[in-house]
Amino acid sequence: MTTKTQVAIIGAGPAGLTLSLLLNRSGIDCIVLENRSRAYVEARVRAGLLEQNTVDLYNELGVADRLNKEGLLHHGVYLSFNGQRKRIPFNELTGGRTITIYGQQEVVKDLIKANIERGTPIQFEAAATCIEGSDTKHPKVHYQQDGEQHILECDFVAGCDGYHGIGRKSLPTNSYNEFVKEYPFSWLGILAHAAPSTDELIYAYHERGFALHSLRSPKVSRLYLQVDNADKVENWTDDQIWDELQVRLSNGNGFQLNRGEIFEKAITPMRSFMIDNMQFGRLFLAGDAAHIVPPTGGKGLNLAVADVKWMAAALEDWYRTGKEQLLQSYSSNCLRRIWRAQDFSNFMTYLFHKQAAQGSFEYHLQKSRFDYIGQSNAQATTIAENYVGLKEI
Amino acid sequence: MTTKTQVAIIGAGPAGLTLSLLLNRSGIDCIVLENRSRAYVEARVRAGLLEQNTVDLYNELGVADRLNKEGLLHHGVYLSFNGQRKRIPFNELTGGRTITIYGQQEVVKDLIKANIERGTPIQFEAAATCIEGSDTKHPKVHYQQDGEQHILECDFVAGCDGYHGIGRKSLPTNSYNEFVKEYPFSWLGILAHAAPSTDELIYAYHERGFALHSLRSPKVSRLYLQVDNADKVENWTDDQIWDELQVRLSNGNGFQLNRGEIFEKAITPMRSFMIDNMQFGRLFLAGDAAHIVPPTGGKGLNLAVADVKWMAAALEDWYRTGKEQLLQSYSSNCLRRIWRAQDFSNFMTYLFHKQAAQGSFEYHLQKSRFDYIGQSNAQATTIAENYVGLKEI
Repeated sequence: MTTKTQVAIIGAGPAGLTLSLLLNRSGIDCIVLENRSRAYVEARVRAGLLEQNTVDLYNELGVADRLNKEGLLHHGVYLSFNGQRKRIPFNELTGGRTITIYGQQEVVKDLIKANIERGTPIQFEAAATCIEGSDTKHPKVHYQQDGEQHILECDFVAGCDGYHGIGRKSLPTNSYNEFVKEYPFSWLGILAHAAPSTDELIYAYHERGFALHSLRSPKVSRLYLQVDNADKVENWTDDQIWDELQVRLSNGNGFQLNRGEIFEKAITPMRSFMIDNMQFGRLFLAGDAAHIVPPTGGKGLNLAVADVKWMAAALEDWYRTGKEQLLQSYSSNCLRRIWRAQDFSNFMTYLFHKQAAQGSFEYHLQKSRFDYIGQSNAQATTIAENYVGLKEI
Repeated sequence: MTTKTQVAIIGAGPAGLTLSLLLNRSGIDCIVLENRSRAYVEARVRAGLLEQNTVDLYNELGVADRLNKEGLLHHGVYLSFNGQRKRIPFNELTGGRTITIYGQQEVVKDLIKANIERGTPIQFEAAATCIEGSDTKHPKVHYQQDGEQHILECDFVAGCDGYHGIGRKSLPTNSYNEFVKEYPFSWLGILAHAAPSTDELIYAYHERGFALHSLRSPKVSRLYLQVDNADKVENWTDDQIWDELQVRLSNGNGFQLNRGEIFEKAITPMRSFMIDNMQFGRLFLAGDAAHIVPPTGGKGLNLAVADVKWMAAALEDWYRTGKEQLLQSYSSNCLRRIWRAQDFSNFMTYLFHKQAAQGSFEYHLQKSRFDYIGQSNAQATTIAENYVGLKEI
């Protein structure tokens, strides 16, 4: 079967679903193709930290009711170095900006619901197999659904289909450079039925390695431990995980971690992935399809949303005026923020992970950099403003 | 011959000569031993950038008349990346703090003159050979002068005798850890009879390597080029140096470098050197004897002065009250600022030197960090406040 639309969006993650809402608002037709089921994408555990920019956009799009009700609004973050804990007050340092803790799967549920209500078709279990003619004015997306071949004809293709998707693979390989950076450590992440032991996130350097106390809800905690790349989940009993978190997150002041049933446990390697051109002809990439940042800065979902804001603005402008300028500068407009987020995520990664022996030259620089946050309002502000998301860049 | 004093100071560089003035002001006797001649130390070309803290101290000590008259007061610095030049306005970002350009040999001349006028003996061409009994209450410094052996008996020894001096070598090797970091590039530095082509320093990243335009006087320029560690001065004609400086410092806006006779030309490797304990018993180190920072932040002389401020305060307190507390915390008090300066110097070094290919992952992070200076008042402030010198740390 052949269908027509203006913009074919591949991928029903935050990037694709936010783009479709933005296009819908501008009266541009689009269809979303998602190779997984609705139940699957609505349950997929990913990021959970929304920048001010992202929350602002969801409010503007009228999809933030549940987010505003159930999301945990954070006005600061705790940074700890060998048990010495400092708070970065976002609102004081950034003129009232905040972050909101709200699981990515909850975002996805809200966006799917809003898209369906507003009449944007989302084809689930529709696997895009080929993007044809992205260097023409009439590209086509071939996809399979219910065992049949389909074609979606369109003016533009948005590749919002993640790192493993066909979006990036459909760029000519000579149209971009690719950058991969593997870090010498991974994160063991857990979700637990345990009331959070903190009101705001705790990023902790410890001589045994990094730990992060995050939250998902008043009853669910999300916690992480730095582990070796070769480590395996089976090497860790639940008690060992809690004991290790207790040691690394302690503040020398009687801090006690609430324990509870661990219902998800996984090891994720830390890496950075970038391409330096996110478009070719009528094909435009957004989100994980084009970039992966280490999770230390909580930037993944927020970058995807920032990308599609540029993409929607460029498409609106084209449909309204026929001008190509914004479309042509799509990559460079996105990449400014993405490289900034890479740099910030690298900074946070190197500040809080153990890489060098206690007492080594690199350790002393790392400690000095941590101490400087407490000595300098300007340095604390650089962390706060990057963390809540730079307004314009 | 045996002489007695309260504090034996080894080395008539900025550290030793500033310490002797501070002690003299507090009525504490000292003698300075310097293994070179007065003419030699007064002509030795070194740093030329004085932080606000350093200038403030020299004013307080009444030795800043010529410095205030002849020093070049700078209210900002230019930072350039591939020809895109930005100014960091110190006074706006740090509440009026500034730096002063004034050659180290001029500082040394002023300090020697003041010491002699105030009656502090400086023994030139007096080579300290051994520090005896630094773990007793009566240490002795053995030295040679005019072919004869002498002994200086004292309460305390200040090792202000630079990286190659006997001060550090007299610490038991098990009393400290040593850190050495070699950078993969060197500086080719010149002094030239050429009016500076800029009113304030220019730090420039260029795809061909780092360049720095500094100044010494209205008629003398000090300039540097990043070169390979294996490079040699003989590989560079004067014209080649000027041509390369012109390329790397250009701003795409017709910037023209004044050329002139090059009267000093040298290649210096970039390195960091640290020890994590600067004292043992009655022996205390200051300045290059204990630490070397890469010159990119202009911190060398200023750290030496900061060290001896702590040392003088500790000695004054001991002579006045007999309390050892400040003496015991001397190292840790100094090291906070020294590690901060190492980190800042590293930051500046990595921001402006070419280390990775144009267009590589590291290059993009470096560029993003540079761009962020223009996007964020907070980031610009971190550079300004470190550059003019943090007030308290």
